[in-house]
Amino acid sequence: MKLYTKRGDQGITQLIGGSKVSKDDKQVIAYGTMDELNAWLGYTMVCCSSREVLFIKELQEIQQCLFDAGHDLATPTKHPAYIFNEKQVGWLEQRIDFYSAHSPEITQFILPGGSRVAAVLHVARTITRRLERQIVALQKEAPINGSVLKYVNRLSDYFFAAARYANVINNVDDIFYDSGRKEFERREDD
Amino acid sequence: MKLYTKRGDQGITQLIGGSKVSKDDKQVIAYGTMDELNAWLGYTMVCCSSREVLFIKELQEIQQCLFDAGHDLATPTKHPAYIFNEKQVGWLEQRIDFYSAHSPEITQFILPGGSRVAAVLHVARTITRRLERQIVALQKEAPINGSVLKYVNRLSDYFFAAARYANVINNVDDIFYDSGRKEFERREDD
Amino acid sequence: MKLYTKRGDQGITQLIGGSKVSKDDKQVIAYGTMDELNAWLGYTMVCCSSREVLFIKELQEIQQCLFDAGHDLATPTKHPAYIFNEKQVGWLEQRIDFYSAHSPEITQFILPGGSRVAAVLHVARTITRRLERQIVALQKEAPINGSVLKYVNRLSDYFFAAARYANVINNVDDIFYDSGRKEFERREDD
Ligand code: B12
Ligand code: B12
Ligand code: B12
Ligand SMILES: C[C@H]1O[C@@H](n2cnc3c(N)ncnc32)[C@H](O)[C@@H]1O
Ligand SMILES: C[C@H]1O[C@@H](n2cnc3c(N)ncnc32)[C@H](O)[C@@H]1O
Ligand SMILES: C[C@H]1O[C@@H](n2cnc3c(N)ncnc32)[C@H](O)[C@@H]1O
Ligand SMILES: [Mg+2]
Ligand SMILES: [Mg+2]
Ligand SMILES: [Mg+2]
Repeated sequence: MKLYTKRGDQGITQLIGGSKVSKDDKQVIAYGTMDELNAWLGYTMVCCSSREVLFIKELQEIQQCLFDAGHDLATPTKHPAYIFNEKQVGWLEQRIDFYSAHSPEITQFILPGGSRVAAVLHVARTITRRLERQIVALQKEAPINGSVLKYVNRLSDYFFAAARYANVINNVDDIFYDSGRKEFERREDD
Repeated sequence: MKLYTKRGDQGITQLIGGSKVSKDDKQVIAYGTMDELNAWLGYTMVCCSSREVLFIKELQEIQQCLFDAGHDLATPTKHPAYIFNEKQVGWLEQRIDFYSAHSPEITQFILPGGSRVAAVLHVARTITRRLERQIVALQKEAPINGSVLKYVNRLSDYFFAAARYANVINNVDDIFYDSGRKEFERREDD
Repeated sequence: MKLYTKRGDQGITQLIGGSKVSKDDKQVIAYGTMDELNAWLGYTMVCCSSREVLFIKELQEIQQCLFDAGHDLATPTKHPAYIFNEKQVGWLEQRIDFYSAHSPEITQFILPGGSRVAAVLHVARTITRRLERQIVALQKEAPINGSVLKYVNRLSDYFFAAARYANVINNVDDIFYDSGRKEFERREDD
């Protein structure tokens, strides 16, 4: 079978099982962004150096989970047969607790960035939150698997915690947001 | 002429020819995402090593095509004068066939990633599909150049095929999606 | 306090001050994309080599400003207490003028890309324009801080000018868009 079928050339596609939907349907948007996040994680893994292999293992597991979650989002809402395992939420919480315990406590926002891996993890965090917003928009129109939404909510906190831990192991200090900027030029004269 | 005219500061801008539209108009969204994809391809080219120069040439050609496609999306719908050449779709198909013929056959989903270039090509694939969704949304409101939609549909398959081929030439095996995740912790005990 | 409160697991969250909104509210979309842009700038900084330190300093300042701007977008619209300082717009204009003065003049579109930093700055440019479109969408529903919209409009021109300057200091020529593509195969025979 050829990769391209040309059947989607007018803008219509299929869900699992074959029911037809427009490509701008809220379900398609949601699993499309799931796929975008998944692709970004593929890149994030490429950015891990040997010191950061622990992330590679975890990110690959998350990629698998995102496909399970994507399956549920691509399921027609009439007779859903969900496969996403809510226990994955608990696993994320354990990892967040571990990373948080090994990073300095903060009570302010930090500038996203630092080491290479921290920076790409922060980007993953914000794509995850974009995905979450789209699942919430979908949920207003059709039933969804609530465990998937929980997972995605926790996942962005996981990426925040992992990004901070990445800076810890790379000996990079997070920089704090310093509210109420003055003019840049003037600041330089200070 | 200065780069910034300040005329768009209230949120209104112009299409080709000068007709006024809101910056959140569906046409502007579509060619804005075309531009985002184009910028990502610029980065993808930067990620190509000497072993991957074949991609650079093709990506630059695609960048040119995306501008032609963007032109058509930025054209006012009353008296459209389209420039996008549908023959480009055939060119993509030839490239997909070539890359597919030189990659192992698959009958399962793969985790996006692998080599650096494969990873960024997968990201390009998902931005292309986001663009496609937005063109489909636009098409519900206004006439579009149908060849552009076809091209964009084929382009995401091109990026998939190219990503797989990138892993082939880098001797990286694609990892399969293994449906129905168990809990991570438990899996480690297996 | 734990990073995750689980309170947002059903799709509702809070603005500054505590008023409840859906996570797909237009305000949340806008400051969520502000956050995505901010994360991308963190990555852009990672891509700067020693020759490009001037960008690092400026990008960090912009990250701080984006948090101020994000604050205003996350403020409930009833009793807004804005903090974004419009003087930042003037600072961007000065930088655009400087970068433009030190780059070859152009009267055509260029293909986004070139050096690594130029490429990631072009991506920043297009995320900024995506953000601008979302702020314009929000503005149709609720009052916003107009200075933030001005800033974001100017910011995408800043990234364009900075990307071009990055290519100048890296001795890379920008490639022009050459309107009206022919078929790729045939072009090679030329
Ligand atoms: C949902 C879906 C997706 C989702 C996956 C959702 C998720 N879980 O996150 C997303 C959006 C990620 C996706 C992406 C792609 N998909 Co898709 N997808 C589907 C769809 C609608 C359902 C598949 C499914 O999960 N079925 C439920 C399971 C339980 O049933 P299953 O049949 O056993 O599922 C298996 C196969 O469908 C699939 N499979 C079988 N043969 C092939 C061949 C290829 C090349 C691929 C990639 C997959 C594939 O692997 C699954 C087992 O893991 C089918 C069309 C349909 N209506 O069946 C297309 C389909 C499988 N996809 C297809 C394609 C081409 C792609 C993309 C290459 C598109 C692109 N250019 O990006 C990518 C590949 C992504 C990757 N990483 O491998 C084609 C495959 C054509 C072919 N050669 O066989 C199909 C058949 C659609 C079509 N064009 O007709 N897809
Ligand atoms: C559509 C459009 C776009 C689209 C292009 C769509 C596509 N094909 O994919 C997108 C969204 C990509 C785009 C991006 C930008 N654009 Co524009 N765009 C336009 C618009 C509306 C039409 C241009 C067009 O295609 N006309 C049709 C062709 C056939 O006519 P043309 O006049 O011969 O087109 C030529 C020029 O318009 C253009 N050009 C001429 N002078 C200059 C100067 C600069 C600096 C640039 C970048 C281009 C440019 O090059 C074309 C030939 O290739 C014009 C405004 C208008 N209403 O004309 C602005 C305009 C050309 N853009 C402008 C700007 C500033 C930009 C950006 C720098 C904005 C940003 N910060 O990202 C980028 C640059 C992108 C790049 N890679 O070079 C300005 C240029 C101001 C100037 N100094 O001359 C214009 C005039 C809008 C304005 N502010 O008034 N744009
Ligand atoms: C708006 C907002 C955001 C915006 C910021 C908008 C902008 N300026 O661009 C965005 C979307 C970027 C954001 C992101 C995040 N946020 Co937030 N955010 C808020 C919100 C709604 C208002 C904060 C604010 O600006 N208040 C106005 C100022 C003047 O008041 P303030 O109280 O003095 O503000 C200070 C603190 O709120 C904050 N702060 C205090 N303790 C902590 C602890 C942590 C871990 C963090 C990150 C921040 C933080 O630092 C501010 C001073 O710089 C609060 C919830 C609420 N209703 O208060 C959550 C809140 C502060 N955020 C929270 C979290 C978890 C995050 C993220 C980690 C989420 C994620 N996974 O991505 C990221 C972190 C981003 C970063 N780079 O540090 C949590 C913090 C929980 C905790 N452990 O204390 C809160 C309390 C929401 C909640 N879950 O209940 N957020
Ligand atoms: C940290 C703050 O970020 C906001 N918030 C919560 N979820 C999202 C999301 N998916 N996208 C953008 N913003 C979000 C809320 O206002 C929260 O309090
Ligand atoms: C491979 C599967 O991806 C879905 N699909 C097709 N086009 C898009 C798009 N632009 N964005 C997201 N999903 C898409 C369809 O369900 C198709 O069968
Ligand atoms: C350069 C051209 O880009 C378009 N334009 C202006 N602002 C945006 C934006 N935020 N997103 C996408 N396109 C935009 C207008 O058509 C302008 O003339
Ligand atoms: Mg959350
Ligand atoms: Mg397709
Ligand atoms: Mg502008």
